[in-house]
Order: sequence, then C-alpha cells, then structure tokens
Amino acid sequence: MADKYFESYDDINVHRLMLEDKPRTEAYKKAFESLGKDLKGKVVLDVGAGTGILSLFAAKCGAARVYAVEASGIAAHTQEVVAENNLQEVVRVLQCKIEDAGDIIKEKVDVIVSEWMGFYLLHESMLGSVLTARDMFLKPGGLILPRTAKLYASPINMEKYCNDRFMFWTDVYGFSMQTFIAAEAQAMLGAPVIENVERMSLLSEPQLVKEIDCQTAKPEDLKAFSQELKFVARKEGICHGFCFWFDCHFENGVVLSTAPGKPHTHWKQATLMLPEMLQSIPNVVRLDCKVGFVQSEANERQYQITLEM
Amino acid sequence: MADKYFESYDDINVHRLMLEDKPRTEAYKKAFESLGKDLKGKVVLDVGAGTGILSLFAAKCGAARVYAVEASGIAAHTQEVVAENNLQEVVRVLQCKIEDAGDIIKEKVDVIVSEWMGFYLLHESMLGSVLTARDMFLKPGGLILPRTAKLYASPINMEKYCNDRFMFWTDVYGFSMQTFIAAEAQAMLGAPVIENVERMSLLSEPQLVKEIDCQTAKPEDLKAFSQELKFVARKEGICHGFCFWFDCHFENGVVLSTAPGKPHTHWKQATLMLPEMLQSIPNVVRLDCKVGFVQSEANERQYQITLEM
Repeated sequence: MADKYFESYDDINVHRLMLEDKPRTEAYKKAFESLGKDLKGKVVLDVGAGTGILSLFAAKCGAARVYAVEASGIAAHTQEVVAENNLQEVVRVLQCKIEDAGDIIKEKVDVIVSEWMGFYLLHESMLGSVLTARDMFLKPGGLILPRTAKLYASPINMEKYCNDRFMFWTDVYGFSMQTFIAAEAQAMLGAPVIENVERMSLLSEPQLVKEIDCQTAKPEDLKAFSQELKFVARKEGICHGFCFWFDCHFENGVVLSTAPGKPHTHWKQATLMLPEMLQSIPNVVRLDCKVGFVQSEANERQYQITLEM
Repeated sequence: MADKYFESYDDINVHRLMLEDKPRTEAYKKAFESLGKDLKGKVVLDVGAGTGILSLFAAKCGAARVYAVEASGIAAHTQEVVAENNLQEVVRVLQCKIEDAGDIIKEKVDVIVSEWMGFYLLHESMLGSVLTARDMFLKPGGLILPRTAKLYASPINMEKYCNDRFMFWTDVYGFSMQTFIAAEAQAMLGAPVIENVERMSLLSEPQLVKEIDCQTAKPEDLKAFSQELKFVARKEGICHGFCFWFDCHFENGVVLSTAPGKPHTHWKQATLMLPEMLQSIPNVVRLDCKVGFVQSEANERQYQITLEM
C-alpha cells in the first residue's frame, strides 16, 4: 500500500470524504475539547494519522506533545499540514508502522487516539494496531479515544431498497429483463449492502452484538466471536436481513453514533441480506439467531459473517 | 475480463447505469424506429450487446434476424432476456468475440449497431471491433448505427470546480491544509476530469477535433491523429483547460449529443486541465493550439492526449 497509496485522485477523495464526514470528525474534536485542562501538558499518540486532523485537535486543545504515526506516503503532507498551522513544536509526524515506532518514541503516552473503525465496525479495521500501540506506549491509567465501541444489529425490512433494484428490470424501455433480478439478488447476498437505512425499517429494538473495550481488549478477542441474539418484533413486516451499525464512546459522554436515524456518516449502515426472506413477523414474536464473526485468515482486514436461525 | 466480468455487484451497476442513461438508450431506440419499413426483414448485428437492449429494439422494429454478439459472461443473461421477451426466433445471442463470430454468422448483414463510445469518445472504446465487424459482415451499402461520431473541444473556465476542490483545504475545522491543494491539482492533471460542465463555462464556440465516419474509417485512423484548432474567445475568463465531448449521428437526423447544456449522460464531459492557467482571455482574441491523440501501445483502450499552444 505504502508506495501507491497517495498517488491517485481516489486517495485524496477518500481523505476528503472522511474529513467531510462531520459526525465522525466533530466527535473527535468534541472528545478533545471535553478533556479541558486534563489534556494540558499531556502526551498524545495518533495511530494512523492520515491528514493529521486528530493530532491538530489534540495540539490545539493543549497537548504538550503529539506523535502522529502514519505509514503511508501521505505522511509527507501531514508534516506540511503541521508546519502550515505552526504546530511543529508540538506535533511530530512519524512515517512508519506503529509496530516500528518504538525506535523513535522513547516515552509512554497519556492518550492514544485513532479512527480505526470500518464498515460494520470491523471491516478493514485497524483496531489491532491500536491495541498494539496501547500495549507498547500507553501509561497505566491512560486514555484511549474512543474508549469503547459497540456493534448493534436489528432485523430489517428492505422492501423499498429491493423494489427499487428489482422493479427496474421488469420494464426496461418496454422489455422484461427479470433474469437480472436473480443476478442482482445474488450480488446482494455476496457482501453486506452498505446503504443508509431508515430507522422505521428496523423491525425490532436493536441488540448489542459485541462491545469492545479498547482499554482491555486483546487482539485475539477480535479473531472470532459469536453472539446469541433474541429480537422481539416491534412491528409487522417481512424480514429481508439484518442491519449492523456501531457507536463509539469517548470521555465525558461524547458519542459517535452511526445508527439509523442519526446524521449520516460515510459508514452508512451494513445490511446482511438473507437468502430467503422471512415471512412477515407479527408483533411480539421473537426472532432468535446467532451471529458469528470470523476474521479471514487470508486477509485479516476482512470478516466472514455467519447467521444461524 | 470475460471470466470475472459479471461476477461482482459493480458490473450489474454498470449495466444499469448505461440503461438508465436515457439520452443514450433512447437515441438508439429512435434510430431504429426512424428506419420504419426499411428495417422490415433485414438482418442486424449488435456488436457488444451487453444486456441486449439494442438487439431488442431492432427486433421490435421489424428486423428479421438479429445477431447479438457479446464476449462476456453476461451473454447468458442476454439469452434469458431474449427468451423472456419471446424473441428467440429473431434474436440469436452469441457469446464470443466479434473476431471469432465468422464461424457462426454465415451471412452478410444489413445493419450493424453498437454502443462503442467511451469518455471523450475514444477512452476504453471498442470502435476497432465495430470496424472489424463492418469489414467482415456488412453488405455493401449497409447501415452502421451510429454512422458518424464527432469529437468537439472548447477552452473552458473551471473556476467553480477548482474553487470547490481547492477551497476545502483552506479551512478544515479551523486548520489550514493547503499542502493538499498541490496534490489535488497534480491529480487533476494526471487524467481528464470527468464532470458535467455548464455551457456558460465554455470560453469559445466549440471546434471539431475529429470526425469519424464509421462507414469508411480504418482502424489505423484511430491509432494517432492530431488537429490544429483556432478558438475565438466569446467571453472573458481565465482558461483552466479544454473540455471535450462528442455527438453521434444516426439515420434520419437522430443525434445523441453529450455536449454541455444537453441532458446529462453517463459520459458527462472530459476536461483536460492545463498545468498553468491561462490569463483571462478578452473578447475576440484567438487561442490557437494543436491537440493530439495517440493510442497507448501498452493498453490500446487508453489514449495519451497532448496539447500544444
């Protein structure tokens, strides 16, 4: 990744997309601001600093020193950004993997900050690097931002989404192309559908699938886990699949939520479609299932998600 | 391409995108309709049939026989589409490259239809295959749809586009990230900017860069060509680059235009940004340049575009 990372236009667009995601970026800003004088004189480590925005927030809020660790070639720009904002006395940009940062960072830090979350929290995630950073660099009792992440799920009615995609093929300039409906369905089943969904599409109160306490989690906790879930239908509707999203909790009650109904983020929500739609669930009927996440051995940034009903 | 072509969700989205492009698809529909009784009993060859929509138009408008040639795996769906619409007596789907179709198509055809156009007309284009099909299969005096394609250019003011992209980096949550402006500009120069532009952004009357007569063009005509262009500024404004687009002309005056100001198509317009912005061009001043297109030897679906001023 390193060499090619920042060469194309797409990459600058990815960074812009993340910065333009206000719920995301402002949660981190608020998290630092909420620390008030507790941040004064403290040492901060930013894992995967990207454009450097989180390091700048930390510096502006009074950190004495910030290590902005970024493995990709964007680090050269991050360095420029720090200079542009006259914060080179505070923020030190290191272009290396966090695993190699011990050669340069010779002290323990008070705060570790990182934006490591991916689709359905775990996809493409770099939480492993944050846990490594914690074990290498965090002082006992130090802070991690965010401190906890919670993955939720709910059965969902995706009628409008499916109709939009399927109905198109029933009348294409007067012709029927229904063969593509099966292809469309097949494609939907191959990977989670990443789309903003309406809160009213959820058929049940959400249930917690996984809570990650970044202060205590171990890398092996992320390799594989499963959770039994008992949903109670709160309205009638065909169940097309299960929708996943996450909240991240920072200090002093600051929360970044990617739940349906909250302001949209670039993570949207991730819906796992079922091969067979479940019949309409009447009120107060329970839908029990077991959801499992297993990190792919071939590519640990990907997960295999299974659902037993 | 063939094996992986239709496996992913992206591919079905690409076909949907093309079908949803109404100026594109309806131009072909109108072209067939305009032929009226001249199409009755005729034999049509559709080169790169995709979902088969052009073949269906031909069949519905009275063609006696349509060969829908499609090299990718989507051909299996195309076959289904034909059956769904009860046109299997008329439309025959062949999954092969047009170069290999001679083993199966043992007659000459009256009409060749193809949607071969790419960004700035020539990118990713498959016109070469259409010319091959013409030389292999078209009866003397037969029709090609579209018959001609015209590539146009005009100097353009891209102030709003550049401002939108550049200004973002001047105030990112209160920080300056102007180092990314250079990166953004660099990325813009690496490849044409594919965006819908306003007609009022054009600084001159458009000039014809290349006219391709599909009835007479030879593959070698497409390998490399250049054109001297003399633009007369029709308004003042800084020239940020040159905008390219194309029109395709069918029989009986049917035109598919992708010009600025016309209904949007998925091709949008392609703007080549200049390394240095040219100073404001006052009225009636001439801007002379020479534009050159050279097919990449490594990948003949790509062109190197040069501009001498």
